[in-house]
Amino acid sequence: MNLIFHRLLVVVVIVFISTASLLRAEQPNILVILADDMGYGDLNCLGSEHLKTPHCDALRESGVLCTQAYVASPVCSPSRAGLMTGRDPRRFGYEGNLNQSAEKYATRPELLGLPSGEWTLGDHLKASGYSTSLIGKWHLGTQDRFHPNQRGFDYFCGMLVGSHGYFPDRNSNRLERNGRPLRDFSSSYLTDFFTDEAIKWIDGTTSRDQEKPWFLFLSYNAPHGPLQAKQEDLERFQHIQDPKRQKYAAMMYALDRGVGRIVNKLQAQGAGKNTLICFFSDNGGATNNGSWNGPLSGVKGCLKEGGIRVPMIWSWPGSLPPKSTFSGVVSSLDLLPTLLTAAGSQPLPLAAARSHEDGRNRKRIVAKYGAYDGIDLLPLLTGKTSPAARRLFWRLQGQTAVLDFSGNQNDKLIVLSHRPAQLFRPQADPGEREDLAHQSESRTGELFTMIGEWEAMLPTVPLWGSSPFWAGQSSKNYDTWPVRSEPH
Amino acid sequence: MNLIFHRLLVVVVIVFISTASLLRAEQPNILVILADDMGYGDLNCLGSEHLKTPHCDALRESGVLCTQAYVASPVCSPSRAGLMTGRDPRRFGYEGNLNQSAEKYATRPELLGLPSGEWTLGDHLKASGYSTSLIGKWHLGTQDRFHPNQRGFDYFCGMLVGSHGYFPDRNSNRLERNGRPLRDFSSSYLTDFFTDEAIKWIDGTTSRDQEKPWFLFLSYNAPHGPLQAKQEDLERFQHIQDPKRQKYAAMMYALDRGVGRIVNKLQAQGAGKNTLICFFSDNGGATNNGSWNGPLSGVKGCLKEGGIRVPMIWSWPGSLPPKSTFSGVVSSLDLLPTLLTAAGSQPLPLAAARSHEDGRNRKRIVAKYGAYDGIDLLPLLTGKTSPAARRLFWRLQGQTAVLDFSGNQNDKLIVLSHRPAQLFRPQADPGEREDLAHQSESRTGELFTMIGEWEAMLPTVPLWGSSPFWAGQSSKNYDTWPVRSEPH
Repeated sequence: MNLIFHRLLVVVVIVFISTASLLRAEQPNILVILADDMGYGDLNCLGSEHLKTPHCDALRESGVLCTQAYVASPVCSPSRAGLMTGRDPRRFGYEGNLNQSAEKYATRPELLGLPSGEWTLGDHLKASGYSTSLIGKWHLGTQDRFHPNQRGFDYFCGMLVGSHGYFPDRNSNRLERNGRPLRDFSSSYLTDFFTDEAIKWIDGTTSRDQEKPWFLFLSYNAPHGPLQAKQEDLERFQHIQDPKRQKYAAMMYALDRGVGRIVNKLQAQGAGKNTLICFFSDNGGATNNGSWNGPLSGVKGCLKEGGIRVPMIWSWPGSLPPKSTFSGVVSSLDLLPTLLTAAGSQPLPLAAARSHEDGRNRKRIVAKYGAYDGIDLLPLLTGKTSPAARRLFWRLQGQTAVLDFSGNQNDKLIVLSHRPAQLFRPQADPGEREDLAHQSESRTGELFTMIGEWEAMLPTVPLWGSSPFWAGQSSKNYDTWPVRSEPH
Repeated sequence: MNLIFHRLLVVVVIVFISTASLLRAEQPNILVILADDMGYGDLNCLGSEHLKTPHCDALRESGVLCTQAYVASPVCSPSRAGLMTGRDPRRFGYEGNLNQSAEKYATRPELLGLPSGEWTLGDHLKASGYSTSLIGKWHLGTQDRFHPNQRGFDYFCGMLVGSHGYFPDRNSNRLERNGRPLRDFSSSYLTDFFTDEAIKWIDGTTSRDQEKPWFLFLSYNAPHGPLQAKQEDLERFQHIQDPKRQKYAAMMYALDRGVGRIVNKLQAQGAGKNTLICFFSDNGGATNNGSWNGPLSGVKGCLKEGGIRVPMIWSWPGSLPPKSTFSGVVSSLDLLPTLLTAAGSQPLPLAAARSHEDGRNRKRIVAKYGAYDGIDLLPLLTGKTSPAARRLFWRLQGQTAVLDFSGNQNDKLIVLSHRPAQLFRPQADPGEREDLAHQSESRTGELFTMIGEWEAMLPTVPLWGSSPFWAGQSSKNYDTWPVRSEPH
């Protein structure tokens, strides 16, 4: 009875929100462009001297660059679970990456995806009157129950898994459109194909309800491995000697070309002013793809800045200031409230947890901490309000961290399973060179307490397990990064 | 095929061991007596001035007291999983206590017990030619597949759950004999009933193969709560004002009476010399039962000494020296090799893991670390060899610890989820008053690395989850204990 009542309530709310949105002023189109494993320094506007990213740079010129933006996790899948739900993914047990090891050793394979009790950006915006589309990488579960078409996206073209080759190959092809396998992709290169698909969907040449505003999540897998680039793109980077970096540069060039083609399309349609664009990377640069994290320490997979801090660009001509920089703490968890505010709407009430022990305390925890973890960024990005105190948490594979930003303090404690905890001040020391844990014992103690309180609200086991970070190869980069100068 | 071959191999080994044992000299009877939540100071011979424990003291006089003995966990169920298997219970995911919270929130209820891939002391000793019996508390799973009669014990009389009232009460009675419910217990008090049952089984008045040597695990639930004592026992402790301590004293008195009755029985049978007795507690004293941890810091549930260090007495007249003290590090994990050596036997080869992801690495890990974690104590307790280096690990509810004993070093690092890690030297500082983590950074780093390596070999998720220690009530005693003087 409770469940039926709950569903009825959700329907009522959806109808109410949908009706309300029809009565409101024009809703903007919303375009989220996600790069994959891109480093913090990997746009010309972020410091790279060897890549060529004119279109991303132009996007940055048209809006606001957030210099201290964080994602929910230093690895792909839980990072996407966070940005997609607007909730700290650990709150629903979504902690480890969804990879072969998770699939092989899961004690409950049916849990290997975004739990059905969570709403996605697609759900929220669909309920707000939007036509919704996901093009590219999903990486939130491959089983039917997790399919994007079941999770708020009217249209899906891409792959459910976490990585994919860039050239057509029938043997390893995992692409599909709305559940139907695509034998081949029609362009010669996957990044271009996703761009083509995005333009077609925006254009309305593939099915889209043209009466509605649209939300497109363009989820490129570039520049995630495998390192595969078009010959003509590679030839533009003969000046780069490092073979990995050269391929990376060519892959980024194709991604940047896609961004340019889409922005040009919107401007040609006259839709530029009415489209809110957010561009960022799902996590920091990886060691295996030739990326460069600029001044940051650490790498994909670890909780140093290089794993979790990404460039984030917001562009909405006429509504957000151009050529701006915002240096306060923001998070990918903020997409949900920000996009919904832009859409003149509200988040859906949190669904009942149905698939995991998260349900045990959900009511109590939501009452205490709220359902969603992000904040509406529009007042900050437009300069209407000043940054308020902010606290963000992470946990992955035996590493736990809290960032506590309040007043003049911008402190981050990383608690490690097999090394002493470290205290950094990432705003002043983005390279995390100075561990202040011993000098600031009382502050260290405060941050430890925050972590303890946070952990007490999480499910006691994650949806699936993952080996300690320290047992893997990438941990060896924990101390040796950052690579201070751009590889070339 | 592999499984069949493995089972065949096990049968062959069992037959071989059994036959070999028949050819050997007389095997001793083995009696393990376990107290439950008894404090480190709670025998007269351990410092208590207000309790009366003449029979335990006599047992101590007859053999060796180990002053630095550890159990596998500071809570009942995983501690028993460790002593019963001779394996660090975290290696097979047996990490949290098996209580109502575990039962309520388990994601896989079928895993709530000792995994079927583990052998018990009963299995090993039965294969070595013993008649085996468990009387008292099991606490390793209530489902049929976990039943003691399925897990190496020919005879079982007691309760499967972790606690039980001491007076007959039909409504809350959970007692059984070999799977058949016991409507009532025939004695007026549960501790006396278990003693009666033990004497009957030793006597052979309940079914026991009298041709074989016997192994009895007498697993008293005393002095675990609820605090219920016989009036006549209470009257002996009118001098104790503290009401909890008074009841505790009376409960300990009944336990001590049981120990005395059994030892007297053995002596009357002339079996004293041929019976190896080991007495200890499953974990340190709890705050809720009036126990006292003597000089130790901390309490049941935490990884300070008061949670995991227990008095342990070994008595085997003629084979072990009387009135002796052994101050080296020993562990409840040592029971398995010690008892099997006494029985002139060998541990069974480890079974294939069948129920949990432990299986993923079991072969590799066993090849690297061995199957079992204990050592044969007989050469140490008889003084034939000197204590070798020893390393023990613990993990429970967000606390992890390693004790590394080597040469002159006797260091223990406690890594806490929400406080800075602490380094103690428990031999010199049993009260863990001096945290040396900052003074000994390089040693701290070494111990952290040991923990990291250990964690990397564990399953990535436990069999069931448990909330962080810090979220619970007992954490508040972490700093306030020890209670230096005995309550009275």
